[in-house]
Amino acid sequence: MPEPLFSNRPSSERSRDDLAEEDALLTGERTGHSYGDVRSWKFWREIGLFIWAVIATALVIVLAVIYQKAQDPKHSSPHPLGKRNLIFMVSDGMGPTSLSLTRSFKQFQNGLPYNHQLVIDQHLIGQSRTRSSSSLVTDSAAGATAFSCGMKSYNGAISVLPNHEPCGTVLEAAKKAGYMTGLVVTTRITDATPACFAAHVNMRGEEDRIAEQLVGDYPLGRVVDLMFGGGRCHFLSNSTENSCRSDDKDIVALAKANGFNYISDRKGFDGLKGGKAVTFPLLGLFADTDVPYEIDRRNENDIYPSLHEMAEAALTALGEATKDSEKGFFLMIEGSRIDHAGHHNDPAAQVHEVLAYDKAFASVLRFLERDPTEGVMVSTSDHETGGLSTARQLHATYPEYLWYPGALANASHSAERLGLEYGEFLSKNPSDAEKTTFIKSSASSGLGIENITDEEVSKFVEEPEIALYYYADMISRRSQTGWSTHGHSAADVNIYSSDPKAALPLVGNHENTEVGDFLREYLGVDVAAVTKELREKGANLMVTDADGQQVSWMGKLPEEGQRLDGQNHVTSFGKDYRKRGVVHGRGCACGH
Amino acid sequence: MPEPLFSNRPSSERSRDDLAEEDALLTGERTGHSYGDVRSWKFWREIGLFIWAVIATALVIVLAVIYQKAQDPKHSSPHPLGKRNLIFMVSDGMGPTSLSLTRSFKQFQNGLPYNHQLVIDQHLIGQSRTRSSSSLVTDSAAGATAFSCGMKSYNGAISVLPNHEPCGTVLEAAKKAGYMTGLVVTTRITDATPACFAAHVNMRGEEDRIAEQLVGDYPLGRVVDLMFGGGRCHFLSNSTENSCRSDDKDIVALAKANGFNYISDRKGFDGLKGGKAVTFPLLGLFADTDVPYEIDRRNENDIYPSLHEMAEAALTALGEATKDSEKGFFLMIEGSRIDHAGHHNDPAAQVHEVLAYDKAFASVLRFLERDPTEGVMVSTSDHETGGLSTARQLHATYPEYLWYPGALANASHSAERLGLEYGEFLSKNPSDAEKTTFIKSSASSGLGIENITDEEVSKFVEEPEIALYYYADMISRRSQTGWSTHGHSAADVNIYSSDPKAALPLVGNHENTEVGDFLREYLGVDVAAVTKELREKGANLMVTDADGQQVSWMGKLPEEGQRLDGQNHVTSFGKDYRKRGVVHGRGCACGH
Repeated sequence: MPEPLFSNRPSSERSRDDLAEEDALLTGERTGHSYGDVRSWKFWREIGLFIWAVIATALVIVLAVIYQKAQDPKHSSPHPLGKRNLIFMVSDGMGPTSLSLTRSFKQFQNGLPYNHQLVIDQHLIGQSRTRSSSSLVTDSAAGATAFSCGMKSYNGAISVLPNHEPCGTVLEAAKKAGYMTGLVVTTRITDATPACFAAHVNMRGEEDRIAEQLVGDYPLGRVVDLMFGGGRCHFLSNSTENSCRSDDKDIVALAKANGFNYISDRKGFDGLKGGKAVTFPLLGLFADTDVPYEIDRRNENDIYPSLHEMAEAALTALGEATKDSEKGFFLMIEGSRIDHAGHHNDPAAQVHEVLAYDKAFASVLRFLERDPTEGVMVSTSDHETGGLSTARQLHATYPEYLWYPGALANASHSAERLGLEYGEFLSKNPSDAEKTTFIKSSASSGLGIENITDEEVSKFVEEPEIALYYYADMISRRSQTGWSTHGHSAADVNIYSSDPKAALPLVGNHENTEVGDFLREYLGVDVAAVTKELREKGANLMVTDADGQQVSWMGKLPEEGQRLDGQNHVTSFGKDYRKRGVVHGRGCACGH
Repeated sequence: MPEPLFSNRPSSERSRDDLAEEDALLTGERTGHSYGDVRSWKFWREIGLFIWAVIATALVIVLAVIYQKAQDPKHSSPHPLGKRNLIFMVSDGMGPTSLSLTRSFKQFQNGLPYNHQLVIDQHLIGQSRTRSSSSLVTDSAAGATAFSCGMKSYNGAISVLPNHEPCGTVLEAAKKAGYMTGLVVTTRITDATPACFAAHVNMRGEEDRIAEQLVGDYPLGRVVDLMFGGGRCHFLSNSTENSCRSDDKDIVALAKANGFNYISDRKGFDGLKGGKAVTFPLLGLFADTDVPYEIDRRNENDIYPSLHEMAEAALTALGEATKDSEKGFFLMIEGSRIDHAGHHNDPAAQVHEVLAYDKAFASVLRFLERDPTEGVMVSTSDHETGGLSTARQLHATYPEYLWYPGALANASHSAERLGLEYGEFLSKNPSDAEKTTFIKSSASSGLGIENITDEEVSKFVEEPEIALYYYADMISRRSQTGWSTHGHSAADVNIYSSDPKAALPLVGNHENTEVGDFLREYLGVDVAAVTKELREKGANLMVTDADGQQVSWMGKLPEEGQRLDGQNHVTSFGKDYRKRGVVHGRGCACGH
């Protein structure tokens, strides 16, 4: 305390050493002050004062720095220093309404209280605006290009811009910067969302070419270290069974030549021991096309791994592989088929897809909690699908305010699966009476519907090619779930994060390209340099297409007015339902 | 800086005054150090050191306190000390999709870039889950009870609980605590949302009784200081023109007896001079029922004030009146008719309602910025209405990914207004040919539709009682806007705030009752005490109903299974369309 310092000071204005000198002169003797006494008092007082001042100053500096850091938004900005992992989750086609639908379904099925939340609910940070450069309603290709390149492009564009130049992606830039990279999906790995991270084509339908690029046959060489998903048929020569390629190229062989380890089934997946026994790079293709909807897959767990199993294995493997590295990893995980359930207008399939996504979301949170490396997860959708509404007016009478989750809980199969089974049954040329029996039986065993009407049955008999939609419609009507389209809508979609501080630039309402900006900036990677490299190396690069023609490595340009939103998709009956002129029927499954 | 302190110190461990004494003894003369020199050096060094230490210590204390405050979550908690204002905005029936619809419409109409946001977009903080105690799909009564009381109740309940006991509201508790209070709406002031803040009835349809309670004829006496809105007909005796009461009570007279100043038109509103000339308490009823939709009102600005004008006048008046008070005010502002546009499935009316709400939202932000009193605004919806989707599949062919805001921009009138005009025209008993001419003309002049089909025209001729819906449907189809119901849906709705820190408990995904909890806690008021007072004072309180019967002051109890969601509403033709057995037609406007 300051007070004692001056308390025993003589009233004289002269200082103590002046007095000591005077004493000595007056007496001719040393003063009564011993050397020791004087030194210890004066010396230690000054030393003490000095130490006190130094410590206090140091504390001022330390506290000022801490305070500034706490106040400085950059401290929680997307530019952490040092090693970091980024997990980007995409809930394809999941609009805000899907959450309310799924939450109430889960509460109903498990007898949970009304305030029970999904895991994802607890991490809402904002919303994303989704329009593309060509339409107020985006497709997944333009949506994923906004994420991968941080730029708006046209519907159908796989990381190419409206001028048909390629744009470098965050995954490519991450690989160049020394990160490891991965893609985990439940649809074809060649579908728009995964493709946009490591391929560049002018039209999303060119999935054969996307398969080639994903394994490294493009200007940058191999950039993906791990891929899990479906879409095997695009990797197999059309001379083999289950191929959907239009040429005889063997992309599995190409992948192996580029160093990939390849697995193609549950046994191969189990051999990875949850990611502990992965040898990189790794290509895992577990289905010819899409992995079945979760509502069906859960009964076929011995054939197909689940989304959260694939996510956990990828996280473990990438975490382990980058353990001693200076850089971490970038992993994209997509709940791909929430979107498909929207296209099919199948609410029972949708709630199980969203719950599977929620489970994978929880897996990512657990990984981030456990893993010592700094990391963040951001989750969003590319768009809403179906114009889903948790209420539906069935009659002209004014609607009651309710919907019935019980009708979804009764369903044990997807409409897609039942439609396929009906198709197989029809191949045996049954009579109309046999068809009626089959339909009644499948509605009962597959959807828990015992009150199917004759009018409903007759639709299946009259329009078997869209049986899938009639199955979905029976569930939708009984649950009073509404849909306004088999395509996409322009609704804003939710953004979630494991860490709102780390993902601060995405808190609130944002353009979808800002999600792409965040991914790039969090990793601190140079996407522009990749764009430059792609343009230089790809400038005159031609490839041979299935017809033997030489085309740009990014494929042909779309023709004026050409439909690009999933134009190569047809119903399960191989028939493009769009070309039918039916007015009061239902649309087709084409396009995702 | 510390360094110079010891820099000229002799290597001896002895202090400077010891050396001075020794010099004097050795030489027998005074040392060369002058008194002045020695005193100023030693003295000022020690003083300087001391001041430095004191300042540094003070800085340590100051910085430590600042840092602790910055870290302390309570510092940004909903419990600010001292005077405060709370503005609660309700966007009735506005789901997340309404924002995308309105934003794109505004961009289209004003030639704005794709990344232009609404004002409200810039303040998104979370979402609210909306279910009531009786259904997964709430009505506005249960929705507003969650806000006012912080409790779940049944659809139709006006601040009463499922056991039919009244629950105290945040507005009532605020009044008791010394705050001033206000309600500003564009629907009837007796409608569910405003009613829930200062009335208690078992069925929302009892708007006559609600009118009485709002002006103070109930156990707590007068609690509202300012009311602006429509619903005048419930305040006028049924012996007068334009009354919709079932009895001859004069509620305007009752209000005046309770001290209210009363205004009923634009002239009266203008006399308030933007709120600078308000005498409290004030009742302003500017329409018999609802204030017209903004799309129509903007051309009748000399008759009806706008939402933002009413909001600004209320803010100015309440701010001025509480200027020297210890407490601030609580004001509820509702964009009431976003919901009605959803019920009507009229996207053109809806975008103008949302834009009007956005304008009022901006007015509130400006007030909070300017006003010296600490304050916060929270904005949310009670539910989504209509199952609105910004995409619609019109044909069985696979839908294109787009919607057309231009079709909304072409419309200059609401479907409601055109339906009313058609109804008036029909009262002249026109021929079918005259009807056709009228319909074509009104579609052209009112909706900008020049390509009306014969099939469309015939619907108006065949089902004139739902002309409103046919007008709305023509706009919806041409803009490719989808709807799944004329009622409500269970979608989560967005939460916005002027200050995410002050509204921290509402950041993320929350139950609607948590919004009520926040309102109460931000104001620091005792709602439970009001509940107790209401129950004690109301225990045996009976009132006489229109039939002369004695009933509880909260009205009759609903019968088992009775529909409460707006059961007293009928179409503009006075006919309850719910009772019609039409299967392929459209529903009615009843219920909001």
